[in-house]
Amino acid sequence: MKTVLILSGGMDSATLLYDLLAQGDDVDAIGVNYKQRHGKELDCAAELCRINGVRWDVLDLSSLSGFLTGSSQSDLSVPVPFGRYDEPTMKLTVVPNRNMFMLAAAGAVAIARKADRLAYGAHSGDHTIYPDCRPEFVEAMGQAFRLCDWHSLQLCAPYINMTKGDVCRRGVELAVPFELTWTCYVGGVSPCGKCGACNEREEAFEVAGIGDPLCRLV
Amino acid sequence: MKTVLILSGGMDSATLLYDLLAQGDDVDAIGVNYKQRHGKELDCAAELCRINGVRWDVLDLSSLSGFLTGSSQSDLSVPVPFGRYDEPTMKLTVVPNRNMFMLAAAGAVAIARKADRLAYGAHSGDHTIYPDCRPEFVEAMGQAFRLCDWHSLQLCAPYINMTKGDVCRRGVELAVPFELTWTCYVGGVSPCGKCGACNEREEAFEVAGIGDPLCRLV
Repeated sequence: MKTVLILSGGMDSATLLYDLLAQGDDVDAIGVNYKQRHGKELDCAAELCRINGVRWDVLDLSSLSGFLTGSSQSDLSVPVPFGRYDEPTMKLTVVPNRNMFMLAAAGAVAIARKADRLAYGAHSGDHTIYPDCRPEFVEAMGQAFRLCDWHSLQLCAPYINMTKGDVCRRGVELAVPFELTWTCYVGGVSPCGKCGACNEREEAFEVAGIGDPLCRLV
Repeated sequence: MKTVLILSGGMDSATLLYDLLAQGDDVDAIGVNYKQRHGKELDCAAELCRINGVRWDVLDLSSLSGFLTGSSQSDLSVPVPFGRYDEPTMKLTVVPNRNMFMLAAAGAVAIARKADRLAYGAHSGDHTIYPDCRPEFVEAMGQAFRLCDWHSLQLCAPYINMTKGDVCRRGVELAVPFELTWTCYVGGVSPCGKCGACNEREEAFEVAGIGDPLCRLV
């Protein structure tokens, strides 16, 4: 099974990388650069690919960034909100149409390479904040990918009904080196510990019953 | 009604521009540069916007081009096939996932600008060659656009069940300056007259019962 994976460098897509490799898939990983504030995540993704001998390419969509206004993650004039994911301010972190343009661009690569499927690590914890992480969005995009080319591509989001804690537990089973993943939205030298993404990461490790190895490092 | 239109510079999207303006829409036009062989079409699109006072932006996705292998329109190692659209060789002109990545990127702009709808000029003549011009693809993408953001975006492809001849007739009614549109896939100084796109354009003008003003110019 040839699978193209969108690898952000966060813990969810990193776990999915290890999951697909454990299933014996032939995996190519794709990162997307949209000049995200937390672009540091792509360095983590590259390192995960290097140690696993996985082909890694970055699609440079940085020219879109000037158009992605209003989100703290693509518009540097908007500060990253601090707090938990269930707070309304957290919607400021939503990048306009991010998952669709990442899927569409990585899907073009997958089709050109005649891959069987395109995978991404959306999970249920994101649903309340990110509309493009909802199962019905994945379903609509899945239908579009079945139709977009004479070579039909299967969209695969196996964590869509799992919480981030569930994903973290799965990552622990797969021995994912979580110290090589990046989550913080501020994207500084070390995680800020205050943004929604940091809060959610911390909660996921609590669910998995282990400490975050990244926090031990910094 | 605020509408973001994907304007290629071809005769279909040019007609749609005039149609939307005639309906009183507030239109922003978006071109997508994927290093298409026939990039000349974007110059036509820019000129159409200039004369209509329409905001025009080009999304630079040229970094994708190295990944869009196997198509004569994005991979210069593949020559443009000559002949009619109903010939199997014409599938060489299909750019992997082109409509999805154009829609996704322009959709991001539309969402950031809080537009009501995103329009593109796919028509039924393309269905036999381009899978991403089929009504069921538009329907799936329409559903994805309703779900991709808390601000719901309507996808609008009003020509999807019209032939190119029908679109050309509509353009004549709207006085579209077809001499400022570009169709030829070879993208030379003047249309080659031999590629599938040139053949289809010629047939459309025959249906509309007028000569092609571009051919009179060159």
